[in-house]
Amino acid sequence: MPDQKKIKEFCGVFGIVNHYDATMLTTLGLFALQHRGEEASGIASADGKNIYLKAGLGQVSQNFDNDSINELKGTMAIGHTRYSVTGSPTIKNVQPLLIEHTKGKIAIAHNGNLTNAFSLRKSLEEAGAIFQTSMDSEVILHLIVKSSKASLKERIFDAMSQIKGSYCLLIMTKDELYVLRDPQGFRPLCIGSLENGKTTIVCSETSALDLINAKYLGEVKPGECLCVSNKDSNKATFTREIFAKAPKTSYCIFELVYFSRPDSLIFSKSVYKFRKELGRILAREAPVKADMVIPVPDSGIYAALGYAEETHLPFELAITRNHYIGRSFIQPSQKLRESFVKIKLNPIKNIINKKSIIIVDDSIVRGTTTKERVRILREAGAKEVHMRISCPPIKHPCYFGIDFPDSDSLIANKMNLKETADYLNLDSLVYISLPGMLKAAHQEGMNYCHACYSGEYPIVVDDIKNAHKES
Amino acid sequence: MPDQKKIKEFCGVFGIVNHYDATMLTTLGLFALQHRGEEASGIASADGKNIYLKAGLGQVSQNFDNDSINELKGTMAIGHTRYSVTGSPTIKNVQPLLIEHTKGKIAIAHNGNLTNAFSLRKSLEEAGAIFQTSMDSEVILHLIVKSSKASLKERIFDAMSQIKGSYCLLIMTKDELYVLRDPQGFRPLCIGSLENGKTTIVCSETSALDLINAKYLGEVKPGECLCVSNKDSNKATFTREIFAKAPKTSYCIFELVYFSRPDSLIFSKSVYKFRKELGRILAREAPVKADMVIPVPDSGIYAALGYAEETHLPFELAITRNHYIGRSFIQPSQKLRESFVKIKLNPIKNIINKKSIIIVDDSIVRGTTTKERVRILREAGAKEVHMRISCPPIKHPCYFGIDFPDSDSLIANKMNLKETADYLNLDSLVYISLPGMLKAAHQEGMNYCHACYSGEYPIVVDDIKNAHKES
Amino acid sequence: MPDQKKIKEFCGVFGIVNHYDATMLTTLGLFALQHRGEEASGIASADGKNIYLKAGLGQVSQNFDNDSINELKGTMAIGHTRYSVTGSPTIKNVQPLLIEHTKGKIAIAHNGNLTNAFSLRKSLEEAGAIFQTSMDSEVILHLIVKSSKASLKERIFDAMSQIKGSYCLLIMTKDELYVLRDPQGFRPLCIGSLENGKTTIVCSETSALDLINAKYLGEVKPGECLCVSNKDSNKATFTREIFAKAPKTSYCIFELVYFSRPDSLIFSKSVYKFRKELGRILAREAPVKADMVIPVPDSGIYAALGYAEETHLPFELAITRNHYIGRSFIQPSQKLRESFVKIKLNPIKNIINKKSIIIVDDSIVRGTTTKERVRILREAGAKEVHMRISCPPIKHPCYFGIDFPDSDSLIANKMNLKETADYLNLDSLVYISLPGMLKAAHQEGMNYCHACYSGEYPIVVDDIKNAHKES
Amino acid sequence: MPDQKKIKEFCGVFGIVNHYDATMLTTLGLFALQHRGEEASGIASADGKNIYLKAGLGQVSQNFDNDSINELKGTMAIGHTRYSVTGSPTIKNVQPLLIEHTKGKIAIAHNGNLTNAFSLRKSLEEAGAIFQTSMDSEVILHLIVKSSKASLKERIFDAMSQIKGSYCLLIMTKDELYVLRDPQGFRPLCIGSLENGKTTIVCSETSALDLINAKYLGEVKPGECLCVSNKDSNKATFTREIFAKAPKTSYCIFELVYFSRPDSLIFSKSVYKFRKELGRILAREAPVKADMVIPVPDSGIYAALGYAEETHLPFELAITRNHYIGRSFIQPSQKLRESFVKIKLNPIKNIINKKSIIIVDDSIVRGTTTKERVRILREAGAKEVHMRISCPPIKHPCYFGIDFPDSDSLIANKMNLKETADYLNLDSLVYISLPGMLKAAHQEGMNYCHACYSGEYPIVVDDIKNAHKES
Repeated sequence: MPDQKKIKEFCGVFGIVNHYDATMLTTLGLFALQHRGEEASGIASADGKNIYLKAGLGQVSQNFDNDSINELKGTMAIGHTRYSVTGSPTIKNVQPLLIEHTKGKIAIAHNGNLTNAFSLRKSLEEAGAIFQTSMDSEVILHLIVKSSKASLKERIFDAMSQIKGSYCLLIMTKDELYVLRDPQGFRPLCIGSLENGKTTIVCSETSALDLINAKYLGEVKPGECLCVSNKDSNKATFTREIFAKAPKTSYCIFELVYFSRPDSLIFSKSVYKFRKELGRILAREAPVKADMVIPVPDSGIYAALGYAEETHLPFELAITRNHYIGRSFIQPSQKLRESFVKIKLNPIKNIINKKSIIIVDDSIVRGTTTKERVRILREAGAKEVHMRISCPPIKHPCYFGIDFPDSDSLIANKMNLKETADYLNLDSLVYISLPGMLKAAHQEGMNYCHACYSGEYPIVVDDIKNAHKES
Repeated sequence: MPDQKKIKEFCGVFGIVNHYDATMLTTLGLFALQHRGEEASGIASADGKNIYLKAGLGQVSQNFDNDSINELKGTMAIGHTRYSVTGSPTIKNVQPLLIEHTKGKIAIAHNGNLTNAFSLRKSLEEAGAIFQTSMDSEVILHLIVKSSKASLKERIFDAMSQIKGSYCLLIMTKDELYVLRDPQGFRPLCIGSLENGKTTIVCSETSALDLINAKYLGEVKPGECLCVSNKDSNKATFTREIFAKAPKTSYCIFELVYFSRPDSLIFSKSVYKFRKELGRILAREAPVKADMVIPVPDSGIYAALGYAEETHLPFELAITRNHYIGRSFIQPSQKLRESFVKIKLNPIKNIINKKSIIIVDDSIVRGTTTKERVRILREAGAKEVHMRISCPPIKHPCYFGIDFPDSDSLIANKMNLKETADYLNLDSLVYISLPGMLKAAHQEGMNYCHACYSGEYPIVVDDIKNAHKES
Repeated sequence: MPDQKKIKEFCGVFGIVNHYDATMLTTLGLFALQHRGEEASGIASADGKNIYLKAGLGQVSQNFDNDSINELKGTMAIGHTRYSVTGSPTIKNVQPLLIEHTKGKIAIAHNGNLTNAFSLRKSLEEAGAIFQTSMDSEVILHLIVKSSKASLKERIFDAMSQIKGSYCLLIMTKDELYVLRDPQGFRPLCIGSLENGKTTIVCSETSALDLINAKYLGEVKPGECLCVSNKDSNKATFTREIFAKAPKTSYCIFELVYFSRPDSLIFSKSVYKFRKELGRILAREAPVKADMVIPVPDSGIYAALGYAEETHLPFELAITRNHYIGRSFIQPSQKLRESFVKIKLNPIKNIINKKSIIIVDDSIVRGTTTKERVRILREAGAKEVHMRISCPPIKHPCYFGIDFPDSDSLIANKMNLKETADYLNLDSLVYISLPGMLKAAHQEGMNYCHACYSGEYPIVVDDIKNAHKES
Repeated sequence: MPDQKKIKEFCGVFGIVNHYDATMLTTLGLFALQHRGEEASGIASADGKNIYLKAGLGQVSQNFDNDSINELKGTMAIGHTRYSVTGSPTIKNVQPLLIEHTKGKIAIAHNGNLTNAFSLRKSLEEAGAIFQTSMDSEVILHLIVKSSKASLKERIFDAMSQIKGSYCLLIMTKDELYVLRDPQGFRPLCIGSLENGKTTIVCSETSALDLINAKYLGEVKPGECLCVSNKDSNKATFTREIFAKAPKTSYCIFELVYFSRPDSLIFSKSVYKFRKELGRILAREAPVKADMVIPVPDSGIYAALGYAEETHLPFELAITRNHYIGRSFIQPSQKLRESFVKIKLNPIKNIINKKSIIIVDDSIVRGTTTKERVRILREAGAKEVHMRISCPPIKHPCYFGIDFPDSDSLIANKMNLKETADYLNLDSLVYISLPGMLKAAHQEGMNYCHACYSGEYPIVVDDIKNAHKES
């Protein structure tokens, strides 16, 4: 799970059709997806006549209680957790987005990032459109409303044909839910069911299905549209249709390596097993003599388990994590700043002292936090500190929904491996290789996007690059 | 670390003498002791002329920020985290307690429980005293003020001579700190130093010393009084004196087993190593054929590590813990109640399914939570579930500072081992033996209190038993 | 000032150009206009490069403090206080409205009510527009953006040519402020200056000018557009231009009678003197023998002064007003409900007992509150209670910016004068006549809208009537 | 009603016996007494078995809602509003004070000020007592508990015999209420009844009786103790007994002049009529030629009415008061400070301009606020400004329950009348004479304390003077 490091997902989505407690289950589902967006959360529900909305800055547990859940009436709902990426988070940039239009009310929730939103928005504004938010999701709404097609589904497909990039999209009317995934399948989106199949659910990760005891039915396919009707109270009925095809898929490997919950299946794969396998491959690629393997909690924990198993070295949880919230309530004077590193993570001296240790983590981003951690391990008496990282160096921006720091501030763009090890004061430092990582991820017929490591973007990203320059 | 289980420590204490940032360090120290009392927190500081106080309901991070720290002036401070045990927590029952008396201001912070507070209080009230709180710590203040002795130290010793039970006591005047530990040494209390010995610190656990980078100097001895002077700004000077002796010590073994932080030394012993050793002994006492060892996070984690090492079975973190706060923000309808078990802990289906597993935890109290956990492991597909507990069954109340549920509600008082295993739907259940636990704890010349397991109370507890009956 | 009665103004507006403390003065100005809209407040400022916005539910003192004022940078600002009329107040329906468009950022603040907003909005939506709020002010923005004219001023005039109804409109770009008043001049809007004319101010009432020590320069004329430039830091320069003409003006007489502050000039007339004059005319129209004249505080106070002066009867403030906020913090049981009438207003028994009294108020709306007040005067011992009302009976809805209750619930539509007096348990009841009121308001060449009393609407209101029916 | 001026009463008290909604009525009663203490409020209730307490910093409407009222069970209650005078207000210094003692629970509420609290407290502490608050009311509790007498009533009388100063005291046990007023009768305390005499009420002012529709039965006499029993659920029965006598009464005339609500009877006298009479006497003592009489709202309003009636000059409410809370939400820059004077009170230019005006107020304390007010009247164009004050100059501290600023900061101790008028920039300034004021207050057989004007203290105040020096 991401922490102080500044890598963030844009969003998590959850939708449910035909359940008497739709909003309560959506609240629970969003809670299970909280790590995918901690800055805002919202739910829209529908009861066949109307759409109800509550959305705001804050986590799920801050925004929803039994009262607000009761006010969101109906047997269908969609929810969204959001990490607001543009400037300071503002109340307008929350989802679901709801519009009241003469053609009917529509609510949408979107996980992903459109790569041609900038030029689409410009054209729309020049034709007289007014935008209220800075979210690219609003572009989709305008395209749907503008479309001259007859039915809503046709208007949605018309809009999608103009859009590029990554999206898992939930579009809800008063009695229907449209679920769309981009043709490359960048972000995960799975289907589940409850009440013996009467209730249909879609969500970003299977951990949300687990929490509400729902059955996992598989993935929404890349380029697929599910149209789920809530008109029949006996059963949510749905049709599936491929509305767009890409030459090959581009599943985001970073979801598996870093972002998703370890208890989820992502792209039908166990995140837990995948991360342990990364540790095993890393152990084979970069063994070293030492007394024990220690994970950085909680990010390095599964790869460290795999590393320890492969090497038969003792696995020690010798860095403890404090679960009380403490980072920000006081600002230390300069002299006491060093104490604050240990407020969250404390190395256990009597385990580490005079020992050679292997530290395993899932990534190094800027390097500053890692450097501090190595320092306190040295202070605790570690004789040797070897670091093993379960992904290759991160070097390139993501245009498909993950927010990395500026490329310039990524340590892998500033130093080579030797310099990095010296800077971090390590006895040795090894990242897993790209082939090693892909081997662990391998599934028949599936291609991954690894642009953040390799710079090989699977689709053209010129428009979004220009937008970044202009803003 | 204790969780939803209803076992709670009464308090943690922290004191520091002669540091320019005394209150900031006390705040950090209390933060490291937060697990010892989550309901109230307070700090009193002194600057040679006056004593300043801020205390209230709430955790350290809720009660203290840079502003309040700045208002607590001076180079000496004592702090307290409290779990309020009597009835509902009220604002009056917080510590440190401060009195303004013609004989001078005194602030006290107390960890422990007096076993004769009830009869002492009754006598004092009959002599005209008025009590403002229901804390037994207030009795100590009255005894000190009433004492006819000349010096404050003599008055304190006079008071202590009338008191029975457990106490780690910090008594602060405008320029001195008295630190006292009961003759049995029930609760832990250690000494540290900073700034090359110019600053003296006392606190409940060494984790508080670690956080502020202080040096560990050992324990305050049972029956010992430290008198630390803050009159010399160059150095905190102190005298040490044994004011009372007991035939033998009664260190609380529950601190080691359950209560203290794994990264602390308690009674000079590594909690982490002790708990791993419990797991090893348990593995030898109760081996079983299985596919993997899984801890209940975070309570069972260290014993599970020891158990897995001893048995060479794979150690799997197959129950994940959600760090977002979610338990209480919504109340589920009856039908959805089962989902809420997984809000905090989620078993990973794809690891557990069709496997025989050994679950390790540090205790079973009422059994209700454990029963739910076994149920969700079964639902996740576990073929066999064997449970191993790293302490003997808890059967008796503690009168020395730990708050167990009523004896009647402890599962070990309601069922035998076989019945318990059936009730919890386990394939097997084994607790470590009392000799096994004491073997892991053994240190030359040190005796432990294990009354909660054995019912053998090291001192007479008639008065407090009567008080419990009357109230 | 309006109170528990449910008559509310939609809004107050304030704008300032070329002042180093523009946002602070806007905050003060809005505070002076708080009575014109208590449910939401907002400020947008501009510094030549950018526009900054803070707006939300809540009164001025809740939404703004020194920190937020400092964040709203620049030497130009517009502000808005709002009473949200459509359904429950929501965060989206606050002003100023800000849009970021390729043609530049625009913020608008609007006091008034468009009578053809409904049909305009429908046409715009059918052409593909998406609305984010339910405020008719958003229609104006769409019309401006859609206009094919070259300059912003032309686009604004193009938009205004399509709009009917009442508006005082402030449109701010990064360096200019456009100020427009509808051709009938329904709502008040005045001009002021500060710093020897270097700073220009516009606002709803002169009380806002008084508070910031600004000089009053007269009114923005009906159908006039001021274009104030902030490009020259030495001086706000402005041009004035009549963009639309109406056959005659329709100043809202209800502003004078009821809504505006007594210390304001409205339509160049002293509200205080006008209300006293109403009392004098009422005394001549409806004298009665009694011991004293008592105002309902604070609404009847000025008319009562005039009434007492004209009749030479003693003026007694024998109903006291409690300034502590108390109405809503507790809900009484049925038996105690009567006590709650006196929480806000308490009649002084020892003044009223056994006396014949004349009670003066500025209006009766539903009659329920008035009935309660008469009851407690009777309980206090009043021998006779005569009521005099300083406006004619309110019978018709307002479509130009005042929110009356439904016509059906207005007492004047349910009972004749005799029935009303009986219902209220009065010895006599007289309203001022319409000619009497108009005589007090008379100014050469100025016509008033008195539709709420007479039903004579000065412009066609069919579209808005239809909208009310549909919604 | 006191405002920004720094004269404050210490407290208001309310007690009720035998009513099914005792706590709700106490809440309403305290709300009517809010002006007597705005910083803290509390209620204790009793149900024959137990005493329940809720008290804290904040006004009545902040501290009490229906939930808290329901938690305060029983048919008897006492309440307290407090202005905390010693240092910063702290949570401990709130009332009612509740103690749990082996002799039974007791709650007390006290309005007044003991003049020998300091020496009593010192003696008690030297005998071993511990005080938790800095309120002199706690001394009373200690004296009662210490007393060797048999019954509670005897112990109370024993305590009272040692106490000097002013007190209206409510002492509540689980089923009885003792009500005591000091022998001089400094502070007001009246009796009322509800439910045809079944319910008995005591409170500081009759406005609290009015609010709950209770019948006024007269005053608790100086030196009298009411013992009201709640043991019979059919009727509150009480005995009355004089426990102490003083040579003559010393009713606080400042209550009538300034402090109490205008709608109250105080010492059986109408505050409203008294203040109007002050205005009439002042008009006869100090007439002046002018165009109108203007009160400073709300403090000067009743004296101004009397002054205008006596002189037949027009009474104009030409200074308006803003009821929105605005003083403290923003801090103005130096340049804008002048605007803030008008945030609360705004003079109406079009009434005042070029007129000679007489301004009436009830006091001048430091003179700084008055000076500002005169300045803005001059700015509004007043030709001449004559000020008339309806009490003599305040020169001396009060030791009986009113908190004046330090004597040194009172303007009457710094300047003579001529200098004051010059400093305030007035054309003339006259205070009412002491004989004039006493004439208005005259009632047969009643003596008033006027020490704040005359310096003639009716009882010895050496002890409290010493206490002030030491602290």
